[in-house]
Amino acid sequence: MYGLILAGGSGSRLWPLSRELYPKQLLNIQDTESLLQATFERLERVMPASNIISMTGVKHVSNVKYQLSKLYQNPIVLSEPTSKNTAPAIIVGTKFIMEKTESDPVILVLPSDHQIKDIDGFEKTVKKGEKIAQKGLIVTFGIKPSYAETGYGYIKVDSEEIESGFKVNKFVEKPTKEIAEKYISDGNYYWNSGIFMFKASVLLEETKKCTPEIFEKLENYDFSKSNEIPYIEFDKMPAISIDYAVMEKSDNIALVKLESDWNDLGSWSSIYEVSPKDENGNVIVGHVLDEGSKNSFIYSSSKLVATIGLEDTVIVETEDAILACKSDKTQDVKKIFDTLKKQNDNTHLVHKTVYRPWGYYTVLAEGKGFLTKMIQVNPGQKLSVQSHNHRSEHWVVLEGMAKVLLEGKEHILSPGHSIDIDVKEIHSLQNPYEETLKIIEVQKGDLLIEEDIVRYEDMYGRV
Amino acid sequence: MYGLILAGGSGSRLWPLSRELYPKQLLNIQDTESLLQATFERLERVMPASNIISMTGVKHVSNVKYQLSKLYQNPIVLSEPTSKNTAPAIIVGTKFIMEKTESDPVILVLPSDHQIKDIDGFEKTVKKGEKIAQKGLIVTFGIKPSYAETGYGYIKVDSEEIESGFKVNKFVEKPTKEIAEKYISDGNYYWNSGIFMFKASVLLEETKKCTPEIFEKLENYDFSKSNEIPYIEFDKMPAISIDYAVMEKSDNIALVKLESDWNDLGSWSSIYEVSPKDENGNVIVGHVLDEGSKNSFIYSSSKLVATIGLEDTVIVETEDAILACKSDKTQDVKKIFDTLKKQNDNTHLVHKTVYRPWGYYTVLAEGKGFLTKMIQVNPGQKLSVQSHNHRSEHWVVLEGMAKVLLEGKEHILSPGHSIDIDVKEIHSLQNPYEETLKIIEVQKGDLLIEEDIVRYEDMYGRV
Repeated sequence: MYGLILAGGSGSRLWPLSRELYPKQLLNIQDTESLLQATFERLERVMPASNIISMTGVKHVSNVKYQLSKLYQNPIVLSEPTSKNTAPAIIVGTKFIMEKTESDPVILVLPSDHQIKDIDGFEKTVKKGEKIAQKGLIVTFGIKPSYAETGYGYIKVDSEEIESGFKVNKFVEKPTKEIAEKYISDGNYYWNSGIFMFKASVLLEETKKCTPEIFEKLENYDFSKSNEIPYIEFDKMPAISIDYAVMEKSDNIALVKLESDWNDLGSWSSIYEVSPKDENGNVIVGHVLDEGSKNSFIYSSSKLVATIGLEDTVIVETEDAILACKSDKTQDVKKIFDTLKKQNDNTHLVHKTVYRPWGYYTVLAEGKGFLTKMIQVNPGQKLSVQSHNHRSEHWVVLEGMAKVLLEGKEHILSPGHSIDIDVKEIHSLQNPYEETLKIIEVQKGDLLIEEDIVRYEDMYGRV
Repeated sequence: MYGLILAGGSGSRLWPLSRELYPKQLLNIQDTESLLQATFERLERVMPASNIISMTGVKHVSNVKYQLSKLYQNPIVLSEPTSKNTAPAIIVGTKFIMEKTESDPVILVLPSDHQIKDIDGFEKTVKKGEKIAQKGLIVTFGIKPSYAETGYGYIKVDSEEIESGFKVNKFVEKPTKEIAEKYISDGNYYWNSGIFMFKASVLLEETKKCTPEIFEKLENYDFSKSNEIPYIEFDKMPAISIDYAVMEKSDNIALVKLESDWNDLGSWSSIYEVSPKDENGNVIVGHVLDEGSKNSFIYSSSKLVATIGLEDTVIVETEDAILACKSDKTQDVKKIFDTLKKQNDNTHLVHKTVYRPWGYYTVLAEGKGFLTKMIQVNPGQKLSVQSHNHRSEHWVVLEGMAKVLLEGKEHILSPGHSIDIDVKEIHSLQNPYEETLKIIEVQKGDLLIEEDIVRYEDMYGRV
């Protein structure tokens, strides 16, 4: 069996903790590992790590690779050159697996940003689905609804069984409250989890029937020499979901009920729902001081958050943005996100702290002609060999030891020591030691942007 | 006429905007100037600036002097060596004025942290009060209550007039809701504003009668050589309020109704009350994005605050602490403040940004053995000549030019240039130029506290 993890995402729903460049699946929400990492580990229960392929947008490749590399030495991450919804990604990914393996395996596709805690139940469902997929059906995983949710799509099944799954009658879009309630009382509707399985050749055959405009373009892909998805070919494909392209049109679909818990963590309210609560019904994370609040979600990532007498309220504090929201309005977080995007306010896009393969940096202060960062380089890591056309840099070591290469000369700096890097000088920062390295960087120049970088060498393949 | 501004305060009620070391009167809440500065200007309407004396605790002297020096070249600020409530401060301040002027003037005493916008009405009341004070009465300013407030003291007056003011019947403590409502319907109760006037000799005479244990100690004060209030003498005085020491016991008091608006800005709710509101009843200050909130107070000092669907809620964002509070619970802010104080959490004490006579600094990052600040030195200002026993410092200029004196040698640094200051080296930082100077300071050492400073010379008298 092979696995295809869909690791894209806009980062809008859990703003300000998620950002466009750091979406939900990369976050550690309730755990020491991210949702993406948990998804990868879940798949490892049913297949070898080498059989797992992740697909994500160009913007997220570096972070996805970095997180997965902590679980498996050489994770395969395919980069979608442009945003085309799920159908092109899944179908091209399927073609990739067929070509690379020269076989016709069963493929399990799953989103990277859902929470499933009962891994045994998940494994049991996958094993059941695999048998049905082997028989030539596309298997979709349905979740027995526990209430009349209006934020999910539903799948209606017939009572007859098909190869020990339910025969799918139809896929339906997000319903109104009344319709959702009818679905629940009818009893033959399931939530659409976005998890499904199929034999590779079966998906391609169904695509040929249901969406020939995608299928026809597949012949231009050739993964024999590279893992790159060609931009020009991919861009020609229509931007549609796999539900719309295949699932809703095919009559070759069976539904298997997911035998585990499941939560899409699609809003702060759903995070609140799955979190352990104190005796006042509050979920409190981080440096928080509360006086008498009830049924509230209070999350501090760094600063002190003091709350008094709140009810049914969500407070999320991050280094550069704070959200305060009534619990029943958390779906409107997306409106805030979209407004910021429209206003070109970077608060939707990145955090003050930006994670890199080698560690992270935090912007401490910005002003006319200068920018100050704190940079952490993890043990054994090295920033690319680089130069800048518009800025000089000044580094001061705070903790650990820095190995600096400047114009071919090596300097070893201990805490309190500093070095100047002039415009255009070729330099690199390295931490070959066992202790974490922290430095202050003061940038000076007329143009202080991340894009002002010429890379000569990079251990993470970013040249 | 002379003026005595009481400029002490704990900083607890408007936390996190106010701090113990930066209380309410130093804040610019709705204006470009602070409440203290507005108080000083209000007094300037009725007396020359040279007649205004301010009194405050040791901790606040530097900030009070700095703010007042923007309005008047050489403001007189007396430092209360220890915290003794209002009576000792006012009585010693009165003695100071009598000795310095060798006369017996009328003195107007007023708190520094109240808001009065109708200065003409204030001036009219003072003129009326002055006439009554000249006749030998202590005049207290009363505010006609507009509702049954339980947070203020009340003054009951008799219907008979005394020298065109009301004869005071008694002072009463903060009442319960029921009693406050009775006061309102009775009609002969006023709020106690804490503003009063008297001839200097009259106050001392009344003190002699009412609180001889304070009066007797006055003879040990001698201001002929210095403006310093001696610690040992002041510390012997009882810590009591002027109401308790004199006003409640004397029967020589007249009440004059304050002919202006008045607000003590004693909580976030009262700030909300006096602020202009948008069509949804919200008061929004700073970088805020709102979706459908109502009747809320949302204040951002630096970061983006996004609010969705809040009602009757107060959100206050500062660089290191965020308050989220139901509007009817703002009096509980003091509980948070007290808890922080008990926990030795400095968030009650100082801001990340600390104002100094020469500019300000902001703590950017702290860690094991290091501390990074951004320091702004205003044009023409100079930090004290100093050294440190436990830390080295590294300075990088960001904006402007720095004149650095290091072990007797002068260095002029332009942006991007840096200098190292070793443990125990004597140094000073100066900005003799017209542009603002900004530097990054990286401190390194085993003990990184503000108290590790030896001052040799200081243009603000802090040696």
